[in-house]
Amino acid sequence: MKSAKKGHTHIILIERGEKVIEKLTEYCREHKITAGFLTGIGAVDEAEIAHYIVDNKEYSSTTLSEPMEIANMTGNVATMDGEPYLHCHITLGKKDFTLAGGHLKEARVHAVCEVYLVQVKRKLERAKDERIGLNVWKDLKG
Amino acid sequence: MKSAKKGHTHIILIERGEKVIEKLTEYCREHKITAGFLTGIGAVDEAEIAHYIVDNKEYSSTTLSEPMEIANMTGNVATMDGEPYLHCHITLGKKDFTLAGGHLKEARVHAVCEVYLVQVKRKLERAKDERIGLNVWKDLKG
Amino acid sequence: MKSAKKGHTHIILIERGEKVIEKLTEYCREHKITAGFLTGIGAVDEAEIAHYIVDNKEYSSTTLSEPMEIANMTGNVATMDGEPYLHCHITLGKKDFTLAGGHLKEARVHAVCEVYLVQVKRKLERAKDERIGLNVWKDLKG
Repeated sequence: MKSAKKGHTHIILIERGEKVIEKLTEYCREHKITAGFLTGIGAVDEAEIAHYIVDNKEYSSTTLSEPMEIANMTGNVATMDGEPYLHCHITLGKKDFTLAGGHLKEARVHAVCEVYLVQVKRKLERAKDERIGLNVWKDLKG
Repeated sequence: MKSAKKGHTHIILIERGEKVIEKLTEYCREHKITAGFLTGIGAVDEAEIAHYIVDNKEYSSTTLSEPMEIANMTGNVATMDGEPYLHCHITLGKKDFTLAGGHLKEARVHAVCEVYLVQVKRKLERAKDERIGLNVWKDLKG
Repeated sequence: MKSAKKGHTHIILIERGEKVIEKLTEYCREHKITAGFLTGIGAVDEAEIAHYIVDNKEYSSTTLSEPMEIANMTGNVATMDGEPYLHCHITLGKKDFTLAGGHLKEARVHAVCEVYLVQVKRKLERAKDERIGLNVWKDLKG
């Protein structure tokens, strides 16, 4: 992972073999990023993606293992129990140009993963919401 | 819907059962947002998406009714006749990890929909363009 | 192409018949944009998309020729040999609402292509990385 920072904008290069969520979490911890949004493109060769159904209150997931373009990665940063909490979704492009995607659990970089993260300097904590079974943003006004 | 604001960045949580376009429009009206861009992730369980062909000058659309991840939502805000005008496209992830998508007419939130909207403090009005049959940005320089 | 600028945010309208990468590159050259990120939506009717495999060190590509929604375009700007270098990925929505996508070589606008580009005022040069066979961001810290 390599990076540069200009104001609140972070330019992050995740490199071949590195794990996307792991590295972004590490980056946010080091730079004390507690809120913000990100977009990314690049390629991965292993990705675990998931799909959630509120009625079941659980994710079903699958692991795809082949070189795939990151057609798009969209995500945000919050914290939970004081630790950075990355929430990213992904659209993956296969060799035949069909796509697969959903909630991103983790992915391993194939060539590069180029991320722009815009930091927001405020607290944005998540807490478990029992009704939907997920960790939801708190600290917001209704 | 809950929200927080820091500078020009708006963090918006659209909640289970709420409609995405309706809530974003309401938010922009209340906060007098006349231009800006947004990205979002989350999940919906009903979505009407559309596809446009200039030759026909009309959208064809379909409604999908099942729990789907928002692999990505990308959109922008303008105004038309002084009212906020949301333009969003969406990529939806099904339980089998295949995707569907296009122009987003409306969607109902399944678990949550997490949006970051970056406001641009300027006027950006849309007006009907008869050549392509759509409401297009005006106030831009050629 | 028409545009407006507010601070570091550029609002760019690429018009029917124009080429997306060509126009964005032209825009960045004129406005001396050397780094930044962008998102876009709209529609195209011809697009060349590509998929990269590190082992082969080459892209395979295909050209799709039909009216397609840009469900999402995500990209960034860098420079190479001093010239603007656009790197964009795309998700394209067909009439039956299925999607195709990957690395975007070039696309021709069908109705409009609406882009928000956030400029970062710093140098971000690319150079060929022989290990992966691609032009990779330099000037970042490890």
